Amino acid sequence: MELAIIQSAINLSTSDEKIVQEIVHRMSQVPGCAVADYSSDIDHNRTVITLLGGAEGLARAVDELFQVALEKIDISRHHGEHPRMGAVDVVPFTPWGRETMEECIALARKVGEQVAKVYSLPVYLYGEAALIPEHRDLSHIRRGGYEQLLQDIHRVSDRQPDFGLARVHPSLGAVAIGARKQLVAFNVNLKTDKVMVAKQIAARIKGENGGLSYIKAIGVNLKSRGMVQVAMNLLDFTKSTVVQAYELVRIEARRYGVEVHGAEIIGLVPLECLVDIVGFYLSIPDLKVSQVLEYQLLEKNI
Amino acid sequence: MELAIIQSAINLSTSDEKIVQEIVHRMSQVPGCAVADYSSDIDHNRTVITLLGGAEGLARAVDELFQVALEKIDISRHHGEHPRMGAVDVVPFTPWGRETMEECIALARKVGEQVAKVYSLPVYLYGEAALIPEHRDLSHIRRGGYEQLLQDIHRVSDRQPDFGLARVHPSLGAVAIGARKQLVAFNVNLKTDKVMVAKQIAARIKGENGGLSYIKAIGVNLKSRGMVQVAMNLLDFTKSTVVQAYELVRIEARRYGVEVHGAEIIGLVPLECLVDIVGFYLSIPDLKVSQVLEYQLLEKNI
Repeated sequence: MELAIIQSAINLSTSDEKIVQEIVHRMSQVPGCAVADYSSDIDHNRTVITLLGGAEGLARAVDELFQVALEKIDISRHHGEHPRMGAVDVVPFTPWGRETMEECIALARKVGEQVAKVYSLPVYLYGEAALIPEHRDLSHIRRGGYEQLLQDIHRVSDRQPDFGLARVHPSLGAVAIGARKQLVAFNVNLKTDKVMVAKQIAARIKGENGGLSYIKAIGVNLKSRGMVQVAMNLLDFTKSTVVQAYELVRIEARRYGVEVHGAEIIGLVPLECLVDIVGFYLSIPDLKVSQVLEYQLLEKNI
Repeated sequence: MELAIIQSAINLSTSDEKIVQEIVHRMSQVPGCAVADYSSDIDHNRTVITLLGGAEGLARAVDELFQVALEKIDISRHHGEHPRMGAVDVVPFTPWGRETMEECIALARKVGEQVAKVYSLPVYLYGEAALIPEHRDLSHIRRGGYEQLLQDIHRVSDRQPDFGLARVHPSLGAVAIGARKQLVAFNVNLKTDKVMVAKQIAARIKGENGGLSYIKAIGVNLKSRGMVQVAMNLLDFTKSTVVQAYELVRIEARRYGVEVHGAEIIGLVPLECLVDIVGFYLSIPDLKVSQVLEYQLLEKNI
C-alpha cells in the first residue's frame, strides 16, 4: 500500500442540518481534504464528520470548522444525550497506510496550539497525543461534561488544559484534540423506552467493568425514536470484535425480555472489520480482505 | 470512479500445486495484468485464478496460461467432481468501473479466435459474447462434460465450436471463453457424506427449478473432507443474495437433519456484496458501501 492518509472523525455538538451542511460545504472546498462521510443524530444532538487527507489540508479544514462553530453553535445552550464539553467536541487524527502515528501526534499538537490561540478556548490533547497520562483517556477528560468542566477547570489539577487559558469559552466550551488508532463506532438499539436497560447493559459490556476489553459503552435514550441505545466505541476491533459486541448486547438484553431493534455504524469502518463479520455469520473461517475486489483495485498497480 | 478494469476468473482443470504456481508466476510477469487471487480444490480438482488488468495484458496472460496447460495438463486423464470440458475450462471477462461489457465481448472474441488458431482446440463463446443463443448458458455448453463432448462434437449442431475445428484437442479438450457480469462463487459445505443431500438441495435452490432466480447450483462430493457441498454461482448477487443462498441451504438441510459445516467464497467478491451481508446479520438496514474506509480511498482523489 503506497497511500499515506490521515483520517479525522470529528464530533460536533449539533444536529442542525443547516449548520452541518455549511460546515461540510466549507470543508469540501479545502484542497488536500475530502469529506468522506457525515451523519447526525437528533437524540445525541451530535454530528460526526469524517475527513480524509494530508496534515495540511486537515489543519485548514479544522480551522474552517471552528469559524462556523464560533458563529453558529453555542455549547452553553446545548442539550443532548451524549457526554460533551465543546461545540467542536472531539478532533481525532488517525493514520492509515504508510502514514504514521507520530505524524498524527504532531498534527494534533500543532492544530491544538493553533486553535487555542486563534479561538481562545481550552484544548486538551488526548489519546496518543496526550502530554500527561491523565489526558490519554477521552472519557476521563470529558467526565461530567461541559457543566462539570465549568466548575472544575480552575480548581482540579488534571483539568488544566494543554493549550489555552483555564477558562471555558462562552460558546465553544472546550475541545479534545488527539491522535488515536482506527476506532469503530457501533450502536445497538433496543426495543424499550427504559434507558436503564441500555445503561445496565453498557455497564456490563464495557472493558473496565470486566466486559469486552477494548470496548467503551454508554446507555443513551433515543427519545425521538421511543427506544434506547447501547452506544459503543470499539477501540481495537481486531481484539474486541463487532460480532462479540452485537451478540453480547443481544444476549444481555434477554435479562429484561428486550429485543434488538437494529444497529448502526457511525462514520467509516475498515474493510477488515466487515470481512471478520461476514466470516463469522457465514462460517467462512478463512475469508480474506484480499478477496474483496475493491481492495485489490486499491492495492494493485496494474 | 475513474478506473477501467477487466476481471478474469479463469477456471483450470487441475489442483496440482506446482502447475498452479508456474502458471501464476508466468501470468504475474505480464505487464498490464495482476494475479489478484487463486485457490485450488482437491475434490473439484480445479483451480480458480483471478486476474485484473487491461485487454492487452489479459490476452497475453491467457496465452501464457495455454502454453503451460498444453505442456502440463491432460484433460483426458482428469478426474474431478466438477463438470469440465477442458484443461483450461472457462475464461470469462468481466468489466469493472468505466470498463464496458462491449470491450469484454470484443476481448473474448479476439482471445477465442487467437487461442483456437494457435492451440488448435475448439472454442465456445459464451455469456454476453455468445454468437448463438444456445451458447449463452455455460452449463448448457458444458453439459455431460468432456466425455459427452467427445461423442457429440461431430453430430450435434449446437456443439459446433465458434472458433476452431469440431475436433476435441487430445490434452487441452475444449474451452469456453466469454463475457459476463460480476459473479459470486459461493459454496456451502454440509456435515454429511451423502452427496445426494447436496444434489437435492442444489436442485431445490437453483433458479431454473423455482429456487432463487439468479442462482446456479450443483451438489458435489468432497471426498477428501468427508463432506458434501452445495456449490453455487450467484449470477446477480443484488437480486439473489448470498444471505438468501446461505440461509436457504441451511434450512433445506434440516429436511435431512444435516448441519452446515462452513462456507467458502471462491475468488473475488465485490464490497457491495459484503456490505449487504453485514447489514443483514447486524440489522443495519442503511449500511452504505461509502462507509467503508477502503472504498473512500479508492473513490476519492485527495
